[in-house]
Amino acid sequence: MDTSLPPFLAACRGQAVPYTPVWFMRQAGRSLPEYRARRGPGSILDAIRDPALAAELTLQPVRRYGVDAAVLFSDIVVPVIDFGVDVAPGTGPVVEKPFRDAADLDRLRPVPAPFVDEALRLVIAELASMAVPVPVIGFAGGPFTLASYLVEGGPSQGFAKAKSLMWSEPRLWADLMERLAEITLASLRAQVAAGAAAVQIFESWGGALSPADYRRYVWPALHSVVSGLAAEQVPRIVFGVGAGELLSDFAQAGADVVGVDWRVPLDEARRRVGPGVGVQGNLDPTACLAPWPVLAEQARAVLAAAGPAGHVFNLGHGVLPATDPDQLARLVELVHLETARTGDSAPG
Amino acid sequence: MDTSLPPFLAACRGQAVPYTPVWFMRQAGRSLPEYRARRGPGSILDAIRDPALAAELTLQPVRRYGVDAAVLFSDIVVPVIDFGVDVAPGTGPVVEKPFRDAADLDRLRPVPAPFVDEALRLVIAELASMAVPVPVIGFAGGPFTLASYLVEGGPSQGFAKAKSLMWSEPRLWADLMERLAEITLASLRAQVAAGAAAVQIFESWGGALSPADYRRYVWPALHSVVSGLAAEQVPRIVFGVGAGELLSDFAQAGADVVGVDWRVPLDEARRRVGPGVGVQGNLDPTACLAPWPVLAEQARAVLAAAGPAGHVFNLGHGVLPATDPDQLARLVELVHLETARTGDSAPG
Repeated sequence: MDTSLPPFLAACRGQAVPYTPVWFMRQAGRSLPEYRARRGPGSILDAIRDPALAAELTLQPVRRYGVDAAVLFSDIVVPVIDFGVDVAPGTGPVVEKPFRDAADLDRLRPVPAPFVDEALRLVIAELASMAVPVPVIGFAGGPFTLASYLVEGGPSQGFAKAKSLMWSEPRLWADLMERLAEITLASLRAQVAAGAAAVQIFESWGGALSPADYRRYVWPALHSVVSGLAAEQVPRIVFGVGAGELLSDFAQAGADVVGVDWRVPLDEARRRVGPGVGVQGNLDPTACLAPWPVLAEQARAVLAAAGPAGHVFNLGHGVLPATDPDQLARLVELVHLETARTGDSAPG
Repeated sequence: MDTSLPPFLAACRGQAVPYTPVWFMRQAGRSLPEYRARRGPGSILDAIRDPALAAELTLQPVRRYGVDAAVLFSDIVVPVIDFGVDVAPGTGPVVEKPFRDAADLDRLRPVPAPFVDEALRLVIAELASMAVPVPVIGFAGGPFTLASYLVEGGPSQGFAKAKSLMWSEPRLWADLMERLAEITLASLRAQVAAGAAAVQIFESWGGALSPADYRRYVWPALHSVVSGLAAEQVPRIVFGVGAGELLSDFAQAGADVVGVDWRVPLDEARRRVGPGVGVQGNLDPTACLAPWPVLAEQARAVLAAAGPAGHVFNLGHGVLPATDPDQLARLVELVHLETARTGDSAPG
């Protein structure tokens, strides 16, 4: 077993691991009292723009839970902030002038986010001192997910505006996809350069499209982003909600690991992504609100379906704000204990 | 070809049809100006309790679109109204005292809904006079969907309360499922007795559960309802949103037809439901907001994936309120024209 590689990175590469690594989407966030104490009111973007604060919020769940990866405290809209995006508390991203026509492409350019790079450096310096170094995951939005925010301009029902633009103006849509792929790639490369050891692409709302539409209108941009990161040699995770029919598309875009929500059992997910691709997930986040014995049973079922190798334990979506942090701490412990292997065995 | 059976019913039974039949979930509703003119403000339940008005609202889309089935203007909460359920405009079902413990089971009893039966009789009398008699579909909520409204008590994020009850108090949950199955079965039997020629069970939110949880905690009740209708000899359709992983469960519960949202291509849906079961769907409802050529292309793709037999054309979810009725009228025409067969051929 290559003990030089932290378990999270080893699992992403399908290598032998001493135990199944675990982290949680939105592990830094409102479920933590120390987060609420530090965040204050204000927009999440204010916190993200403050590297010391962003680094602290990134580290809080690592200290409390003993998770196997940190995930940078940031937001998928950061690379398109200059388009006039804000994040309204309780509402999500809102755009003053939503994307409508070719002229709007001029407002979409890759821009550096020095505060992100600085936050990453602060986090990495702190984590390097730990007994087992904890890798940091950088991230970005998937092309449809980012575009949906820019086109809808606010909360949407069914992404009708984004889909309408996609279907009615396929050339403009293709230009938008290409521009977003450039921006995303630049952001992820900068995060890797600043020390991110893996990246996750949140194609959270891609599952709102039929597989045929996703393949035709979005997949080329996803492929550009994922394959464009090959030289960086960091594991690339692609995740979507309700995206069960897109798992093979995510894998074919070049993902090393496909994130799965709780709707698709991980053994079935493995069938869809094919050999050589890892799976991440997929505990129903609401299970963390249930009594411990229920949560433990659900977690064991996830481990059983996943099998021992090439699995990163996670929830099937983000931590719910009402989650008791003690439940997550016990969950990390359970995953580590139940999957612990002796040092000289190499699980298949 | 058995010309005595209307195309909708023939397709539900996998028999030869002169053309692929079509209806739309929520075809009676806010997208129609004549609906808005007749409904007025007030709760939807007031309209449902008025048989003449409910019948009129049921008939409006049949007259305008030439769809192959009417669907009774009603709501899935009607059989549990006495539990203290109201439907708030723009919010959906709200419950004054949500379901919490065994004592609440006493508030759940099958109660007759004479206004529903009367509305059905009025609709059927009117439809019988048409050249090709148009069948009426009765409907009810699926066990998880109904329970989720009763337990959540209002809008919910992720059905956390319902799932928590399900996991934490499995015996109480099983009693709730059994009671809801009784109530649903009584309602559907009454609708068939009043003349409904088919029934649809809207297990709309079942897809929020993992397949393992659905199978263990909900499926037995779904099976009770669907198999309990065998003697009625009407086609039974089961539909869910984001329920791609439950399609085989719906079929195994005894569904004659499984309704599919736009996330699962119908050829793949057929693989999941197995031979001898029809499919219904599955055009993305937002496609109806797109320009006609886009809508036409999307509709043709649905027809191609479905194949000619055992297919009821529908949207993958309800008609969006912003939909232009002229688009739906053209869509019905397209489906009928593109699938028209000569009278003496028997499509496979």
